[in-house]
Order: sequence, then structure tokens, then C-alpha cells
Amino acid sequence: MPVGTLASVKGVSQDVLEELGVEILLANTYHLYLRPGIETVRQMGGLHRFMAWDRAILTDSGGFQVFSLTGLRKVSEEGVAFRSHLDGSPHFLSPEKAMEIQIGLGADIIMAFDECTEYPADAERARASMELTLRWAARCKNYFEANKYEVPWSNDALLRRPLGSGARPRLDGAEPRRHTDATQALFGIVQGGMDAELRRESAVRTIDIGFPGYAIGGLSVGEPREVTREIVLSTLEHLPADHPRYLMGVGTPEEIAQYAQSGVDMMDCVLPTRAARHGLLFTSEGKVSIKQARYAQDENALDPACECRVCQRYSRAYLRHLYASNELLAQVLNTVHNLHYYLATMRTVRAWIRGGHTSAQR
Amino acid sequence: MPVGTLASVKGVSQDVLEELGVEILLANTYHLYLRPGIETVRQMGGLHRFMAWDRAILTDSGGFQVFSLTGLRKVSEEGVAFRSHLDGSPHFLSPEKAMEIQIGLGADIIMAFDECTEYPADAERARASMELTLRWAARCKNYFEANKYEVPWSNDALLRRPLGSGARPRLDGAEPRRHTDATQALFGIVQGGMDAELRRESAVRTIDIGFPGYAIGGLSVGEPREVTREIVLSTLEHLPADHPRYLMGVGTPEEIAQYAQSGVDMMDCVLPTRAARHGLLFTSEGKVSIKQARYAQDENALDPACECRVCQRYSRAYLRHLYASNELLAQVLNTVHNLHYYLATMRTVRAWIRGGHTSAQR
Repeated sequence: MPVGTLASVKGVSQDVLEELGVEILLANTYHLYLRPGIETVRQMGGLHRFMAWDRAILTDSGGFQVFSLTGLRKVSEEGVAFRSHLDGSPHFLSPEKAMEIQIGLGADIIMAFDECTEYPADAERARASMELTLRWAARCKNYFEANKYEVPWSNDALLRRPLGSGARPRLDGAEPRRHTDATQALFGIVQGGMDAELRRESAVRTIDIGFPGYAIGGLSVGEPREVTREIVLSTLEHLPADHPRYLMGVGTPEEIAQYAQSGVDMMDCVLPTRAARHGLLFTSEGKVSIKQARYAQDENALDPACECRVCQRYSRAYLRHLYASNELLAQVLNTVHNLHYYLATMRTVRAWIRGGHTSAQR
Repeated sequence: MPVGTLASVKGVSQDVLEELGVEILLANTYHLYLRPGIETVRQMGGLHRFMAWDRAILTDSGGFQVFSLTGLRKVSEEGVAFRSHLDGSPHFLSPEKAMEIQIGLGADIIMAFDECTEYPADAERARASMELTLRWAARCKNYFEANKYEVPWSNDALLRRPLGSGARPRLDGAEPRRHTDATQALFGIVQGGMDAELRRESAVRTIDIGFPGYAIGGLSVGEPREVTREIVLSTLEHLPADHPRYLMGVGTPEEIAQYAQSGVDMMDCVLPTRAARHGLLFTSEGKVSIKQARYAQDENALDPACECRVCQRYSRAYLRHLYASNELLAQVLNTVHNLHYYLATMRTVRAWIRGGHTSAQR
């Protein structure tokens, strides 16, 4: 799931995302809450209509970003008080608030508001954090079940809109999203730090609360990659195979292929897009740092095995020039290539799975 | 002619430019001379191959940019000594050097190295400057005629390339540019300040030297718009109607339409692209400053009469959010719209000319 933080995958327009075969985007609740604000998105009929994207969207709960604001936030049983990174204004996020916001944004899949356990955390701290996440998960579900028909595109919500302010059809004739009884899917998140037994307990008790999908959170927070792998593999054993299993914040092309083959269904990571903006490009021949002088007169394609529009048209020399000259197009082309690379990797993995060439326990 | 300063129209990829119907781009010699450097472009076979653009390119001579470096340059009969705005390194541009560079870049149309007369300039200064430009124009033509077969895509140059380093075909099968005897077209530039009589003399004496096309330079340098118009209209009377007539550095949508109807064939201006990056958008209903709060929940298209991809898909509210959030996509979409607007304006003018609805003296 490419990350479109502020309802945009940086520099890449929605038609290009469609062409790349992107089926689902991730958008960040914390950032959208600040800009443009939830009321704006709600008034516009939800994120899909706001950003003119009619494929799937997943929003995170805001929990991770808020926890990243270290000096600017304070956790209590009730929720998290924090200060906006933009202007220092005070705000408060709770399980209920995170649900209200995500319902208003209207993504297809929304995430429970959890506490992303810091790393490292001792046994007592990891347990306390995991227990808090479970109490918050129950509160999320309760609020969600009571308010899910407020989603801007549910039939209920559409019926209540004043005449004339209704869904504006896409000028190209596509129908606005209209779901008779459909609402969003709220996923639960497993925590437990780096302790396999705590993770098992978190999984079992999250499943007890009951969600249509389950995420593994609190990883890629500084732990060694082997620990990440251990925790993922052991936690997967406790997540039902017939529900989507979402590993949050991972990973490199090799990792997403490995984890997908091990049974993970969904992943998100800023790596392809952020690395692209720093000129770090993933290719079938390894990572290329396109700013290097060695590419200045290299007339070869970035990746000879890649079928993306960038590799089909532009030379490394040109890409290098764009990046070295700080041209906007560098950001755009680099991102398009890296996203293609990631999505092609996943297409390959799906082919393997269909062909039976995988160890996934299904 | 959209301006693609550093071999890129900022943020807009070449396939999108093609889709917009762009037939010719302008690239800046001064900037390319500094980055990536002329040898790199020459080694890559010229600008077209370097930037993967097989439609037309025009390069300016570097004269205007160098003159804009006020404190950093010194003019003599020989040429202009200047310091790079990037790192202060010293360089020298002469008519011969400007020809050598532009031949190496390989644009279809190249410009004589002229002195862009400052504004205001008294009669003596305007005359001296105009005479210098004429002497430089003759030197440009001499050098060009003696060296034009050095252009990287001429048959001569291609024949001399080592085997194996030859033209890399586009991976999509399009043939590399190959012209048996074709070379570039060098245009002369009329100066003369804001004096119609000096302008007439400059035109006549430039035509005496003889070029396949003629530009009107030294305008939009701070003079009142009515003066620009007077000088353009009077100068046009002295330029042959059967050669392209290029008005440099102009203008707004209204101006390009007016000048085209008056007989100008080609124009370039940073306005559509630069204004776009500042959120200033040209529409059939007037200029829109998209950052304004009034658009924050405006679900209408930017320009209801516009058929560009941006207006067909995105709302003002989304465009406003992108710009206010400093998203890269704001730059991209704003530029695409403004370019469409300019190009659509010119398409309309061409339709008028074909239909006879114009005062152009032809």
C-alpha cells in the first residue's frame, strides 16, 4: 500500500497510480486531521471523493504519528494529549476520537487506536502497553459499531445530505461511491513488544474482541531485523488465516516478498516513496544511488529488467541530472519507478502463491 | 513554448507534455552549460536523446540569463565574463562560444547571442547595444555556418561515433533522430530598446545578415505593457512574413492571443509554469489563487470550461489542500492545468487564423 500521507502520494497523480496498478493507498489520519481537517473531508463526501480516488484507502489511527511526537505528547488511560508539529496547538486523541475521525474520513479500512510500544521496553512496560491497547481496542469497536453509519458515503449519510450539495459525479461519468448498507472495516492491532508470549496473548485477546482483519503493529521501531522476523512469524501463527493479516510499516523489497510468502497479506512502508525522493532507487541489480557521478553519462536504462515508464524512456544520465539539479521531475520519476518495483514484486509473489511455490501456511 | 529550463518542465514528465500537445520546448543554454554540462549532453547524443524528447526544442543563447546576473558579469566586445550563480566560478560567453554550446546541445532552433538592452536605456546606449548585437549576430552566423555539422545528430557526427556507443534506440522501438543533411536553424534577434526607428534599423540589418527566422528580444524588461505592444507591432512590419517571427519572453494568455493574431508565430514565457508553482491558475473565469481559504470546501472543478485532466478529475478543495500543504502534486497539477490553458488558447488562435478571423497581415 503506497503511502499517501496527506491524501497524495508525493508528486504522483492518481491517474499514474492507477496505471501503476495501485489498488489501495494508505493515508495518515494525524496529518489529515491537521490539514485539511476532518470537517472539510467529511463535507466533500469523504477521502475518496476529496482526492478523486475510487479504489481502496486505508487510514491508520493516528496513534503512531502521535507517539512519534515524543516531546509533544502525554499518554493517559483516556488517550493522548499532543501538540501539532505544525503550530504547537494542543489536541487530544482517544480511541473514540480516532474512530470519529476515521469514520469522517471514510476510508475502506480503518485501524484501531493503539499504543505503539516503544523500543526497547522491559517486560512490565510491554505488558502494560499491550493491556492498554486491548482496552482501547474494545473502546474503538464499541464506538465504531454505534457510529459506523455516519461514514459520509453510507446510504444513511447520503440520504441526509441537502439537495444540491449531493455527490458530484465525476466529470468523466464515473459514478460516485454509493454503498447501500456497506460501512468500513475496522482492523485490530496486535502489540506485545518483542516478547513472543505477550504477542500470542495480545493476538488471542484481540481476536476475542473480534475484528474483520488484524494488524501486527509496534515493529520496525529500532529492533534488529532478525527480531522483527521472529516476532512476525510467531505472531502469524496466532492470527486466523481467513482474515486479512496486515504487517504495519514494513519493508524493503526483499522483506515484503519474504513476509508475503510467509502469510502476510498487506503491508505499508514509506520506504519506496521516501527513498525515491532521496535518489535511492531499487532495481533488479541492487540499489542505485542515482546522484552518483558514475551515472552522469550512463545512457542505459535505470533497470534493464524493469518495464515501468521511467525505465522504458529515460537514461540514468538524465535521472542523475534531474536529481543533482534538484528538479521536481526527479521526485516524480524516482517515485514512479520505486512504486512499480514494489508492486511488481508483489505481483510476482502472488503468482508464486497461485502456483503453489510458497511456504505460506494457508 | 513551455520553458524546460534544465531539460525538464518542472514536475511534468515528457509523456504528459506529449499528451498536452506540446510540440516544442524551450531549454536554457546558460543553465544546461552549468548542469549537466555540454559535454555530457553531447556524449548522450544531444538534448533530445538526453531528455527523451523527440519533438522540437529551442535553446536560447544564454545571453539573457547572463545579463540577468548583473553584479556577476562584465561585457566587452569579445563577449561576457560572468560568474556562475551556483558556485561563483568564472566563465566566458561569446558569440562563438554560444554557438559551440548550442550546436553541442543540438536543439532544432538556436538563438544568436545578443545583448539584451537594459531598461531604461537612452538613445546612445540603445544604439550602441543594438550595434553590438549586430556585430555579434554576424559572428554567430559565421561560426555556425563553419561548424553546424558538429551537431550530435547530424549524419557526419553519427558516422564518427565509435561502434557500440552509438544511438541507443528507444526501448519502445522509436527510431533515434537521424537527419542526413539536416542541421539546426539559427535565428537572429532584433534589439533597439524602446525606439521604433532603432528597432526598424535593427530588423533591416539583421535580415541583411540573413537568418531562417527572427526574434524580437529585449522586451518585457520592465517597460509598460503599452510600450511593449507598440514596439512589437511596429517591429513586426519589418520582419518578413514568410519566416517565423518569435517574440521572446511574453506573455499572459490575453497577450499571447493578441500577439499571435497580430502576426507573431512563436512565444515563450515562464509565466504559466512559474505562476502554477505559486498557486496562480489561469481559468476561463479569470485568475484563481488556489491557496485562498474560500476554496477549502469548493467541490467544483478549477475551471468548468477546461478539458484538461486536472479539471476533469480534481476539485478546487483538493487543489487548495495540496498547495496549502506544500505537496509536490500541487506543483504538478497546477502546471499541467496552466500549460493546457496556454496551449488551448493557442489552438483557438490557430483556428481563428484558419477561419480568417484575424487582423494578422500575412
